[in-house]
Amino acid sequence: MFSVTVRDHMMIAHSFRGEVFGPAQRLHGATYVVDATFRRPELDADGIVIDIGRAGEALREVLGGLTYRNLDEEPDLAGINTTTEMLAKLVADRLHDRLQLDEPTAIAVTLHESHVAWASYERAP
Amino acid sequence: MFSVTVRDHMMIAHSFRGEVFGPAQRLHGATYVVDATFRRPELDADGIVIDIGRAGEALREVLGGLTYRNLDEEPDLAGINTTTEMLAKLVADRLHDRLQLDEPTAIAVTLHESHVAWASYERAP
Amino acid sequence: MFSVTVRDHMMIAHSFRGEVFGPAQRLHGATYVVDATFRRPELDADGIVIDIGRAGEALREVLGGLTYRNLDEEPDLAGINTTTEMLAKLVADRLHDRLQLDEPTAIAVTLHESHVAWASYERAP
Amino acid sequence: MFSVTVRDHMMIAHSFRGEVFGPAQRLHGATYVVDATFRRPELDADGIVIDIGRAGEALREVLGGLTYRNLDEEPDLAGINTTTEMLAKLVADRLHDRLQLDEPTAIAVTLHESHVAWASYERAP
Amino acid sequence: MFSVTVRDHMMIAHSFRGEVFGPAQRLHGATYVVDATFRRPELDADGIVIDIGRAGEALREVLGGLTYRNLDEEPDLAGINTTTEMLAKLVADRLHDRLQLDEPTAIAVTLHESHVAWASYERAP
Amino acid sequence: MFSVTVRDHMMIAHSFRGEVFGPAQRLHGATYVVDATFRRPELDADGIVIDIGRAGEALREVLGGLTYRNLDEEPDLAGINTTTEMLAKLVADRLHDRLQLDEPTAIAVTLHESHVAWASYERAP
Repeated sequence: MFSVTVRDHMMIAHSFRGEVFGPAQRLHGATYVVDATFRRPELDADGIVIDIGRAGEALREVLGGLTYRNLDEEPDLAGINTTTEMLAKLVADRLHDRLQLDEPTAIAVTLHESHVAWASYERAP
Repeated sequence: MFSVTVRDHMMIAHSFRGEVFGPAQRLHGATYVVDATFRRPELDADGIVIDIGRAGEALREVLGGLTYRNLDEEPDLAGINTTTEMLAKLVADRLHDRLQLDEPTAIAVTLHESHVAWASYERAP
Repeated sequence: MFSVTVRDHMMIAHSFRGEVFGPAQRLHGATYVVDATFRRPELDADGIVIDIGRAGEALREVLGGLTYRNLDEEPDLAGINTTTEMLAKLVADRLHDRLQLDEPTAIAVTLHESHVAWASYERAP
Repeated sequence: MFSVTVRDHMMIAHSFRGEVFGPAQRLHGATYVVDATFRRPELDADGIVIDIGRAGEALREVLGGLTYRNLDEEPDLAGINTTTEMLAKLVADRLHDRLQLDEPTAIAVTLHESHVAWASYERAP
Repeated sequence: MFSVTVRDHMMIAHSFRGEVFGPAQRLHGATYVVDATFRRPELDADGIVIDIGRAGEALREVLGGLTYRNLDEEPDLAGINTTTEMLAKLVADRLHDRLQLDEPTAIAVTLHESHVAWASYERAP
Repeated sequence: MFSVTVRDHMMIAHSFRGEVFGPAQRLHGATYVVDATFRRPELDADGIVIDIGRAGEALREVLGGLTYRNLDEEPDLAGINTTTEMLAKLVADRLHDRLQLDEPTAIAVTLHESHVAWASYERAP
């Protein structure tokens, strides 16, 4: 099994609903350092999983739709808790839709919210 | 599949039994930077795998029972080689016992013993 | 010259005033991974610059007054641009006031806003 | 499941064939920071997956056959695109051949080509 | 004293002249992860040392003139040993020329050639 | 001003004397990831501060005299608190003695004791 990962980041404001979140129910923010991994059992004819340039550009575009925003006011995120886990899934799904990969490729996304905490989501090919 | 990881550390003394360990048979020590990962197929009603605060607190308590100690003299570790692999399993098992998670959750623990070596253990849900 | 550094983090929302900031004029947020360095020409009688536990606790308290907040609405930050540079100075000054160090000690603070950008402020002893 | 990872690096020149590579079709180079992971369901009698010293030495020897070279002129790499993915497989296969592990052990190799991109290959036990 | 740092990277081939370099006299290559630091005693009216976006763009342009190349064949590098130290100075000087900063600003550049070695150059304001 | 840094590590046991150290008065241990920096105003005729291979070898030898030991029982450390600060000075002084550099070169040593704490010592040329 082969994989390729590219890293980028986004900087957002948001708040959480639910007592479990304690002080994070207040409006605050985060830098998410985002790792997007693409996984396939075999390489293509060029000897790659996916062109790193293409992968990086897709990630930058997906994050460009989220960064420098208050996620509490984004219409397409209304009614959902934008936890690190949920955002990892959102980024993975948007990468899948944008890339329209012709080969079955698993996509995993990790969001690092600090040097001591991160969350991931992996979708099947 | 979703996961959440929290990081903490412990600083211990110990020695190993067995020729394979060479100079590490002498009493020495290590800082272990410890990553504890919790993995579940679905998120809960709050949109999380586990509350990061709760996960971090559990990890701190488990490591609090090991840090600033000479593991060679800990009664409940008597007779075992406290290799990085063994300690990864010990931390994962203690996290499992302490958290009493109601949902089936896999726990993986990685102990970084330096910038060039680390070991992991993953227990099934 | 000796120094000791401790690391912690805070997660805040804010916005900037000034065209130079482009999209960062919108409400957004950041995780700042914060390194606080204490520098002295000589060690004390215990062989240390400052107790790491005490330094870490002071940093946690100072960051506790900022984290999980929207800095645009903090009364004591009214009218200032909370740039990474400005926040580095704010944290350094508050550490100085809180610690009341009896020896002349330089304090430097670095705020990492992502894996590709950070800012620092150093105040003389 | 247990694993142990060791890290080392190599510094090579090479070029790629194929329009997808854009400017990387020119002769250029890379530092690959290489992580070699060994994975087994159970520990051996010493409480380890593999001796870290032995794993590190094997990795150093395998990388020693590649580092400080122009891969475009290595006879045993003639005709293949030495992409990060391909090199990850090459290192994993050579580690497998060199170590002659008596227990079934999966080997995974990750090559970090920069702070924002890396690739991996995992071979089954 | 305030500073701001931005990080980017380049991937080059080169060789060294001089017995001290041992096997690095052969054509090989490196990824340099490059940190460019700008240092000033006071902030400007916007509360910054330099706009991070502008700094990052200048660094990307300077590295764009070096990356994906064989430095042994670059006319403007003819006759010089492109050691990590020399390249750190080259990048710092080119940043200075390109940015035409109106305030006296020290520029320091660090090139990380691996996870275990790096070199820096700092030019006075 | 130019500098070169090399990184290695050591793994030791020790304990501290003094109430300020709290639980670290017990026998425990640490991995120190050690960065040794060499600083000079000008490069030599080969375009370097110091040969990275030579610097790395010297650091490995100095750390080889400390690693895999209980520092409480080392005769030449008797009577001193082996704090991170003290050990940084010890490594810097031993590097100076071993390398016998003919040019005036400042040596700075940083010991990382975890992902959240480190200490440094810099000696003048």
